[in-house]
Amino acid sequence: MSRAVDVPALVEQARAGAPRAVARLISLVESAHPALREVMAALMPHTGHAHVIGITGSPGAGKSTTTNMLVTQLRRAGKRVGVLAVDPSSPFSGGALLGDRIRMGDHASDPGVFIRSMASRGHLGGLSWSTPQALRVLDAAGCDVIIVETVGVGQSEVEIAGLADTTIVLLVPGMGDGIQAAKAGILEIGDVFVVNKADRDGADATVRDIRHMIAMSDRTEPGRWRPPVLKTVAARLEGGAEVVAALDEHAAWMTANGTLHRRRVARAVNEVEALVLAELRSRMGDLREGHRVEEQAAAVVERRTDPYSAADRVLAALN
Amino acid sequence: MSRAVDVPALVEQARAGAPRAVARLISLVESAHPALREVMAALMPHTGHAHVIGITGSPGAGKSTTTNMLVTQLRRAGKRVGVLAVDPSSPFSGGALLGDRIRMGDHASDPGVFIRSMASRGHLGGLSWSTPQALRVLDAAGCDVIIVETVGVGQSEVEIAGLADTTIVLLVPGMGDGIQAAKAGILEIGDVFVVNKADRDGADATVRDIRHMIAMSDRTEPGRWRPPVLKTVAARLEGGAEVVAALDEHAAWMTANGTLHRRRVARAVNEVEALVLAELRSRMGDLREGHRVEEQAAAVVERRTDPYSAADRVLAALN
Repeated sequence: MSRAVDVPALVEQARAGAPRAVARLISLVESAHPALREVMAALMPHTGHAHVIGITGSPGAGKSTTTNMLVTQLRRAGKRVGVLAVDPSSPFSGGALLGDRIRMGDHASDPGVFIRSMASRGHLGGLSWSTPQALRVLDAAGCDVIIVETVGVGQSEVEIAGLADTTIVLLVPGMGDGIQAAKAGILEIGDVFVVNKADRDGADATVRDIRHMIAMSDRTEPGRWRPPVLKTVAARLEGGAEVVAALDEHAAWMTANGTLHRRRVARAVNEVEALVLAELRSRMGDLREGHRVEEQAAAVVERRTDPYSAADRVLAALN
Repeated sequence: MSRAVDVPALVEQARAGAPRAVARLISLVESAHPALREVMAALMPHTGHAHVIGITGSPGAGKSTTTNMLVTQLRRAGKRVGVLAVDPSSPFSGGALLGDRIRMGDHASDPGVFIRSMASRGHLGGLSWSTPQALRVLDAAGCDVIIVETVGVGQSEVEIAGLADTTIVLLVPGMGDGIQAAKAGILEIGDVFVVNKADRDGADATVRDIRHMIAMSDRTEPGRWRPPVLKTVAARLEGGAEVVAALDEHAAWMTANGTLHRRRVARAVNEVEALVLAELRSRMGDLREGHRVEEQAAAVVERRTDPYSAADRVLAALN
């Protein structure tokens, strides 16, 4: 049994910036709690303010140190910051939080910073609706900026681009990163490119590489955002101000020409569709429990009907 | 545009055993052709006869040579045989057919054997409904036995168990296969265990291992099928008769006690649910095309509604 949830009180506390209330709301998201519908409706009026930054890059590129650097820089400017580390590959949830607290040691005790890890808990397509919901919690809690970092591998770079207003692609000097990025489709998703560990040999060459790839791409067309390529040494907090300036510039550009609204609508399309599919799966589960699907399946096996007609009847029962 | 399909003629030809008609029907399945509904309805009365054998095992265990041996054995007994090689990892379809024809060279020109490869073509959940449909085509074409072999990796062992009436788990001597099998859950899905390449050292030890694992499991409970553990050298066609005898015995046991019907109903449940989800995805795609989801998503972004209410409206429009 789930504990009863006093949604209005929790939302009020979260809006006032109480970390426990924020954490509890994100836990509700993570566990697909039945109160979520009420939670989201209550949060809605207080959302739309936060600038959502996605940060992606290969393992070892320094995603966590870069996040740490950006948080430092944003805090200096008096911004309230949320950090959401999403791990699509992990079945574990909140547990990773501790690791993050240690990793993000500089900011763990700062009341102006919310740090949270979230796992998919294995529910299919779960991150498609749960990540936007967690972002909504942090947004309503007054975050000016939310940094989303994926920990997992694979498709996550592309997925993070779908979740964020602005996507930072993180690279390190060498390894023919320009070519790699082009191949991986990363060139297409980056709004700001950051060559981290820029005190290493080859940093300038990598910057030139990426600038060249951008110059050769369709991103130079009129009316399109031409992504800046910046250098940082995140471990020494070098270059953070320039990255934050670029993020602000991108946000202003997107707001002025309607790109921000379009991106957010596209994001909401994914969220709404994921909720629809989750609801349909749940209804199908209920039908299965009640042996309604089984009855139709038996009719197929006994050749009293065909699978499409059986599916039609299940569909009708879903409604 | 799809070519128009004369379904009654195709079904008639397939029932008469025309390989081209069978191949064409399976191609319709693979491409999710709109005529499939009519095809399946027309096939239904002629199905339910074939014994579906799943064959699974790690790469290198000799799945293809074992299939070849079983086909030889079954042909000697005058049985009509279908072979369906399913590759969930491949985006390619019929192309693999050629490879199979070569691989199954012994039987490529035998009119009593249908051999076909099928890929998922990347449609999500596609194999869940397309594999049962391809089996239905081969069944209606008069196959007495259909052997389903998965080429892919990962979850496919468990999935093949869901597709077949009888599942053969193929092992090779050595490598602590007994333990491996128990860990992989393979012990649970095997109806017949076959230690192939039994001319190698350690074959008897592997047989003992597996028998021991079975003896320790709940599969010795009264009323349960106790899986035999057999030795083969498939490349030399040795042991095929014993495997076919075990398959027949399992089929007779399942028919007598109702297990066959129960398994087939469980399989049809998966098929019907997969068809329902495919239909819902398709309707959602139509709604997206018509900007219905986008309208709702825009309302969420503009805080005129919440995501759950938006999902409710999309759900209502789906019906």
